[in-house]
Amino acid sequence: MKTLGDIGEDGLISRWVALVPLDSAVVAGPGDDCAVIDEGGDSLLLLKTDAMVEGVHYLPEADPRKVGWKAIARVVSDFAAMGGRPERFLVTLAMPPGLEVAWVDDFYRGMGDCMGRFGSVLAGGETSAVPIGSAAVISIAATGSVLREHLVLRSTARPGESLWVTGRLGGSLAGRHLDFMPRVAEAAWLVRHFKPTAMMDLSDGLAKDLPRLARASGCGFTMDRGSVPLSGNCTITQALRDGEDFELLFTLPADQAAALQREWSGSFPHLPLSVIGRMVGSDHGESLEGGWEHFADR
Amino acid sequence: MKTLGDIGEDGLISRWVALVPLDSAVVAGPGDDCAVIDEGGDSLLLLKTDAMVEGVHYLPEADPRKVGWKAIARVVSDFAAMGGRPERFLVTLAMPPGLEVAWVDDFYRGMGDCMGRFGSVLAGGETSAVPIGSAAVISIAATGSVLREHLVLRSTARPGESLWVTGRLGGSLAGRHLDFMPRVAEAAWLVRHFKPTAMMDLSDGLAKDLPRLARASGCGFTMDRGSVPLSGNCTITQALRDGEDFELLFTLPADQAAALQREWSGSFPHLPLSVIGRMVGSDHGESLEGGWEHFADR
Repeated sequence: MKTLGDIGEDGLISRWVALVPLDSAVVAGPGDDCAVIDEGGDSLLLLKTDAMVEGVHYLPEADPRKVGWKAIARVVSDFAAMGGRPERFLVTLAMPPGLEVAWVDDFYRGMGDCMGRFGSVLAGGETSAVPIGSAAVISIAATGSVLREHLVLRSTARPGESLWVTGRLGGSLAGRHLDFMPRVAEAAWLVRHFKPTAMMDLSDGLAKDLPRLARASGCGFTMDRGSVPLSGNCTITQALRDGEDFELLFTLPADQAAALQREWSGSFPHLPLSVIGRMVGSDHGESLEGGWEHFADR
Repeated sequence: MKTLGDIGEDGLISRWVALVPLDSAVVAGPGDDCAVIDEGGDSLLLLKTDAMVEGVHYLPEADPRKVGWKAIARVVSDFAAMGGRPERFLVTLAMPPGLEVAWVDDFYRGMGDCMGRFGSVLAGGETSAVPIGSAAVISIAATGSVLREHLVLRSTARPGESLWVTGRLGGSLAGRHLDFMPRVAEAAWLVRHFKPTAMMDLSDGLAKDLPRLARASGCGFTMDRGSVPLSGNCTITQALRDGEDFELLFTLPADQAAALQREWSGSFPHLPLSVIGRMVGSDHGESLEGGWEHFADR
């Protein structure tokens, strides 16, 4: 009998979407950062759901206000990576009955900090108990929108394009995973001035997410390891595998590289922007191993 | 230090919504079956999130196809109780790595059965691992709509109105909780022909949900225990407390009672419809104890 751990998250998604009715108005469905739905207006509807598990995405002793910030910021990051923004949040908590109310109060305050910062609101929620001894589970769903001309998918990179990443990668577990700033301003600037041909946010590590972008686009990639921007004292292995960087990974025609670098430095002088490689044909790329696998044995 | 079990679900919701930015376009927010959002069109936007926990809402040995049906049907029932219908679902699974893929395949098939039956679709999802030994958590979010003139809240009952319930109550744990039919057709008929002044679905038991409807409406109630329709061999205590009936509870001006009974029997000859009491002023009602409390010690 095969278990979830035998197949892994990416294989499971494609397996399961074959078993249910899908949305005929969907531009991009399960597999991209958000589902994109075309209802005919100037804006496209974006939908996203996410989960954080105690002991996996945060530790019980973590500052609950930061856990709340992270729960919302993860989802904000997904919307930003498509060129859009979240509007309304639904919060589902499955928590043990013995949890202190003060913990959840601070968790809500942290969510509120992040919603307020990015102009979104709470629309509803649900709270349920898990048995004593079970990990708490936080699920965040959100609706949002993207202007039709700003939409960027992860499946539309083409061979020859250059491959970019914002910020520095690796070492998120030292604390940054709890208080990172989603790249909302940067993504909004990009889609207006140098619209990426494909984009996603880095949540499971470059080693996991770059092959996803390439596979979704039907491309391969080559990566210059020496160009990968490293956080603090991180090694290249950490930068590739730690995950939860929440930086933007995107592609752009190679002839725009010089102009982008110049104008980026003027707009975001404190955030590095790096070319780390380029897209190639699907038969000519290299491969990357590692990154965060949700159902790996740990 | 107070814990979640000390306060209980209803108190927690009102506590937490004070800590985050809320939606100025919300007609009914946290506390009703769905959040209702007025974006100005003929239809109102409905948003809902729900959770099912292994060992609480279903047992590990339950038929996964039925668990999938239930996960979607619970949410369909919430939309029906507001006079609307769900359109797009987001499915978040937090599951142990050792779970058999075949279990989740059948779970997805059951969700697909229910989505297909009620004309809705899967728009996206997320799958994450819980630590070994932790309960699996299924969270279902949905978007939907209701025609402006069909919207029914739970907060708009008035003293003097009669109190109605569809079907029979109690004994859901014997199996009906896994394959119940949400009262979609019945609710749609009601909002067209005898629009309830207030309505909700019975998920936590009449003893829990009727006081919620009364409290939300600023009313009291009187209930005739002899009129509560009992399932099979159930006692009145089971009918009040078991929960997961997923029948409709609604109010209507008393002078429409005879006409409703007559026309209901013509449209739904196999489903009982019962008057179980009436709404009174908030100082004059009775009280009910029991029903499903999510954070009770068990």
